[in-house]
Amino acid sequence: MRTSIATVCLSGTLDEKLRAAAHAGFDGVEIFEPDFLASPRSPEDIRGIAADLGLSLDLYQPFRDFEGVSPELHRANLRRAAAKFDLMTRFGIDTLLLCSNVATAKSGDDQLAASQLRDLGDLAAAHGVRVAYEALAWGRFVDGYEHAARLVRLADHDAIGICLDSFHILSKGHDPEAIETIPGDKVFFVQMADAPQLSLDVLSWSRHYRVFPGEGAFDLGRFLGHLLRTGYDGPISLEVFNDTFRQSDPEETAIDAMRSLVLLQEQGRDWLDRHGGLGSAGGALAARERLDLDVAPAAAPPVDFNYVEVRSDDLDALRTALAQLGFADRGVHRSKPVELWTQGAARLVLGPTGGVGSAPAVAGLGFGVVDQDAAAARALAFRAAPVAREQAVGEERLVGFRAPDGSEAFFGDAGDGEPHWIGEFGTAGAADGQVDEDAAGTGILRVDHVNLAQPWQHFDAAVLFYSTVVGLAATPSTEVAAPIGLVRSQVLRTADGGVRVALNLAPSGDTGGAILPQHLAFATDDALGVARAARARGLAPLPIPANYYDDLDARYELDPGLLASLRELNVLYDRDAAGEFLHFYTGAIGSVFFEVVERRGGYEGYGAGNAPVRLAAQYERRRAGSAADAAVVAGPR
Amino acid sequence: MRTSIATVCLSGTLDEKLRAAAHAGFDGVEIFEPDFLASPRSPEDIRGIAADLGLSLDLYQPFRDFEGVSPELHRANLRRAAAKFDLMTRFGIDTLLLCSNVATAKSGDDQLAASQLRDLGDLAAAHGVRVAYEALAWGRFVDGYEHAARLVRLADHDAIGICLDSFHILSKGHDPEAIETIPGDKVFFVQMADAPQLSLDVLSWSRHYRVFPGEGAFDLGRFLGHLLRTGYDGPISLEVFNDTFRQSDPEETAIDAMRSLVLLQEQGRDWLDRHGGLGSAGGALAARERLDLDVAPAAAPPVDFNYVEVRSDDLDALRTALAQLGFADRGVHRSKPVELWTQGAARLVLGPTGGVGSAPAVAGLGFGVVDQDAAAARALAFRAAPVAREQAVGEERLVGFRAPDGSEAFFGDAGDGEPHWIGEFGTAGAADGQVDEDAAGTGILRVDHVNLAQPWQHFDAAVLFYSTVVGLAATPSTEVAAPIGLVRSQVLRTADGGVRVALNLAPSGDTGGAILPQHLAFATDDALGVARAARARGLAPLPIPANYYDDLDARYELDPGLLASLRELNVLYDRDAAGEFLHFYTGAIGSVFFEVVERRGGYEGYGAGNAPVRLAAQYERRRAGSAADAAVVAGPR
Repeated sequence: MRTSIATVCLSGTLDEKLRAAAHAGFDGVEIFEPDFLASPRSPEDIRGIAADLGLSLDLYQPFRDFEGVSPELHRANLRRAAAKFDLMTRFGIDTLLLCSNVATAKSGDDQLAASQLRDLGDLAAAHGVRVAYEALAWGRFVDGYEHAARLVRLADHDAIGICLDSFHILSKGHDPEAIETIPGDKVFFVQMADAPQLSLDVLSWSRHYRVFPGEGAFDLGRFLGHLLRTGYDGPISLEVFNDTFRQSDPEETAIDAMRSLVLLQEQGRDWLDRHGGLGSAGGALAARERLDLDVAPAAAPPVDFNYVEVRSDDLDALRTALAQLGFADRGVHRSKPVELWTQGAARLVLGPTGGVGSAPAVAGLGFGVVDQDAAAARALAFRAAPVAREQAVGEERLVGFRAPDGSEAFFGDAGDGEPHWIGEFGTAGAADGQVDEDAAGTGILRVDHVNLAQPWQHFDAAVLFYSTVVGLAATPSTEVAAPIGLVRSQVLRTADGGVRVALNLAPSGDTGGAILPQHLAFATDDALGVARAARARGLAPLPIPANYYDDLDARYELDPGLLASLRELNVLYDRDAAGEFLHFYTGAIGSVFFEVVERRGGYEGYGAGNAPVRLAAQYERRRAGSAADAAVVAGPR
Repeated sequence: MRTSIATVCLSGTLDEKLRAAAHAGFDGVEIFEPDFLASPRSPEDIRGIAADLGLSLDLYQPFRDFEGVSPELHRANLRRAAAKFDLMTRFGIDTLLLCSNVATAKSGDDQLAASQLRDLGDLAAAHGVRVAYEALAWGRFVDGYEHAARLVRLADHDAIGICLDSFHILSKGHDPEAIETIPGDKVFFVQMADAPQLSLDVLSWSRHYRVFPGEGAFDLGRFLGHLLRTGYDGPISLEVFNDTFRQSDPEETAIDAMRSLVLLQEQGRDWLDRHGGLGSAGGALAARERLDLDVAPAAAPPVDFNYVEVRSDDLDALRTALAQLGFADRGVHRSKPVELWTQGAARLVLGPTGGVGSAPAVAGLGFGVVDQDAAAARALAFRAAPVAREQAVGEERLVGFRAPDGSEAFFGDAGDGEPHWIGEFGTAGAADGQVDEDAAGTGILRVDHVNLAQPWQHFDAAVLFYSTVVGLAATPSTEVAAPIGLVRSQVLRTADGGVRVALNLAPSGDTGGAILPQHLAFATDDALGVARAARARGLAPLPIPANYYDDLDARYELDPGLLASLRELNVLYDRDAAGEFLHFYTGAIGSVFFEVVERRGGYEGYGAGNAPVRLAAQYERRRAGSAADAAVVAGPR
């Protein structure tokens, strides 16, 4: 399938946009007129640059407010159009996007509109170009694609066809099935955008909140399936107006965009497979072959966390906290300056930040998969950037990719028992006498979830990365109040909960993770037991206010013994229809902290109702100065 | 009128919120339960701190999901309520906010709800407290204040009254007039919030976009007028959920909040004056006296720009550009390290940034007013912070206040002719031989508008500052696309356009004004003439792409001679039903640049359609390096 992207999706100058689109592997671009008007380059220049970059110029857009007007305005409109057709000839662009009239239409008479479109078709044909007519969701008289298709049919001109835009169709709740009634050769262009489900006016929704396919709530696989059934084989182009993308690095945004188009093609194929393929145009297999869908090879989602890598310049504090939680020091790596701590199936690799610069504290997530090669091939097909990683002879190969926040995602072997790479660590060279041979576990079983703070520019991209490259499923997002703003949180997970990654969007004012640290949550069957054992080893948990426990009692009528234990051990509590949740936190260690969680019954949440209490307690401690946090790790071992 | 503020309006810990509210002069606060639950302080502690700060504790909130439930849940709810009543006793708070049920109500039967409210009243009375019942706009069965009032009437209990919240009432489009049918002594509490007009679902609108009175679109003066007519004389409290305020400095936000309450009281008084005063409760004058409205004294809005002060570390470049534009160097100030440049009624004071730190490039706006004392008294009543300014003996007194972005707003004398303070400048001590005695003006008449980039945290506060403290009227905001994101722009102006201040909200990624510089626009009757004269003196205007002029021709069929002149001189053009607009820009000089504008006919805009071209041209030049901008000011004088 040919891929295209509107220049409005990307930030920067027109030159920068073209370079970013080419670098991400797009076949072509739509020239968004304001980008061209603001450029010092002539159409011929831009044509040459695009050709050098291997990009086709697929569309010039938008042309506005044409049909349904008075005869005088119609004459002026044709003059306007002729100037644009001349321009397109200079560009070598053969298709103009015409939006349905929002401002100047005086009549909703279909015959008048069709006749004016026919005049436009004559003019276009004389210039050797054509016009793709699109119904805007807020058009004055024409706001649905079926109406637009009717006008195109009435105009009955070879140079007049339709442009289908998924946003304008799905935002209005229109059923895309009738796309199949449009002849494929009258579909002149197709624009794709996803969007979160918002009950906002459609104009604001469109101008600010569009996202790339897979980042929103629309069923675009179905949309594409209906489209392919028409026999359409032109480009699938992205037209996404998004406040954040407009501010982000265009190269990164373009790769994110291309990733979304790979996902879209997979979703279209799957929909066709489920719904009888191409229908009259042939079977699904034939469709896929003819349309040359760029679909990533299949790979099973990850099974568990193979390991988590944390980087810090205060490794002693991390070591002390892990030892207090019952982790065993498994020694340093034979060739890399990192060390391993384990308990049950929870494995932490600790290393210094040195040389890594701005990498986040949670610098790497190792995912256990049943087929590393398949997972890597799928990740590459989703345009993930491989991480260069040295392996000494005999060391286990780990295949890694760079996540949008700069951290690394690795695929390791999910076989039973400990991974082979653990043999690469040994206590012989352990640093600083921190080895605790006698450490007995406290009951921690594995990593329950990892909580990653994301910079605001990368949140949507991160959701797409973990759902495509890593293969997790996105769940609905929530919001949590912190003393310094609202935190948006979204969990990506596997069906059985073996892997859960929570992404948190820090308030814009947060820089450097000071306000929203990252954290690892360890699973146990006995949170109170772990808390008690860790306390005996000197761990001072994050203190939870007495007010919280008074309110817990008012809300839940808890067993007095349980309530007393929760209060004594600073363990928080939540309950829903499915089960209960007990959890506690360590103090912050640099920009990372730990949590221990116990899920009772079918509880599948994360104690979101308790998060404001936790965030406020962390904020209080930062206000009180670092002395408090130092105390957390100063106790006896 | 007693003023109160909900702790949820402010960021930080509960302690910080209380201090900020007290510092801004509030009489009391509402304790927002999550703020209390997250606090390590006991109710007794908080009571003591509030008392020390001179704050009353006016409300505990919210209590949820009470009425219309099954008998079993009703019993559990009463247990929950008893715990909160005990807590309130410890706080010394006499009123609980009860929100209408959104989650657990099984029945919409008014008799059942009223009977359960009556039970709650009995329990409250036994604890010596009372309950203010509020209809949430998204309540399950009760979502309007008239319904809530009906239930209160049915409950018929001394301890059960109503809470009126302007957001919940006005967001639903409910008419506040029926507030007058509620007996004043049954109005137990009043919460005020404004909001922009959004077609968003009311829950999201409420949770994220509320603003302080005067920052949104609601007619709160009328709301307050109807309320006062009931005889209500309790506190007027602010309850504003706002994503930005949650991230802003609580001290600044609290002052902004108090400013909005002063404005609200003025609007309420004005509404009463226009609508026959207190009605049955007495005349408007009596109302004002009895209610002790804290209303700012009247002052006429400013007439013109007295001067504009620009600070830069590259004064030579500014001097060159001003000389090229035809400004005359009027010499340095007799006691301050600043210098004056004038042309017509446009007066620029230039000074170094030294010692000012992070002050914006446009560091001061001098507004000409007919009565300085009245303007200053009004500003003070609006809680503006005076600027300490040394005056040597015999120098003109300027009264100044600090704007939210750190710049200074001064009130000067708007008499005919040049202000007296000009005599404090003289060419004798002019620096660096830059004096140009022969400078003949190019046709610049005065300052048309000043364009100030605002940090995102301060945009709403800035709108409120200029509309209250300075006395300008806010116009609707627009959005403009820049290469690095969307720019929100809002103009505040006087009726005759003598003073216009445009506030621009930079994209979050912009720091330090690199992307969105500030600028001064000078008015002329002949933009082409000024452009030609300035070019003859060496000014190289911001270059505008040829593509822009081709499009201009396609759109407007301009006279070929005019189009050629525009193109030759890099002058931009806009047209609307009222008239035409011609304007051009200088290159950026540090983080400031100049514009020259000509308004023909009744054109009242700012060429917003041309702003993307200007922003892209500026972005291109920054990309091309500072060499280009250096060239702007390197030409002959």
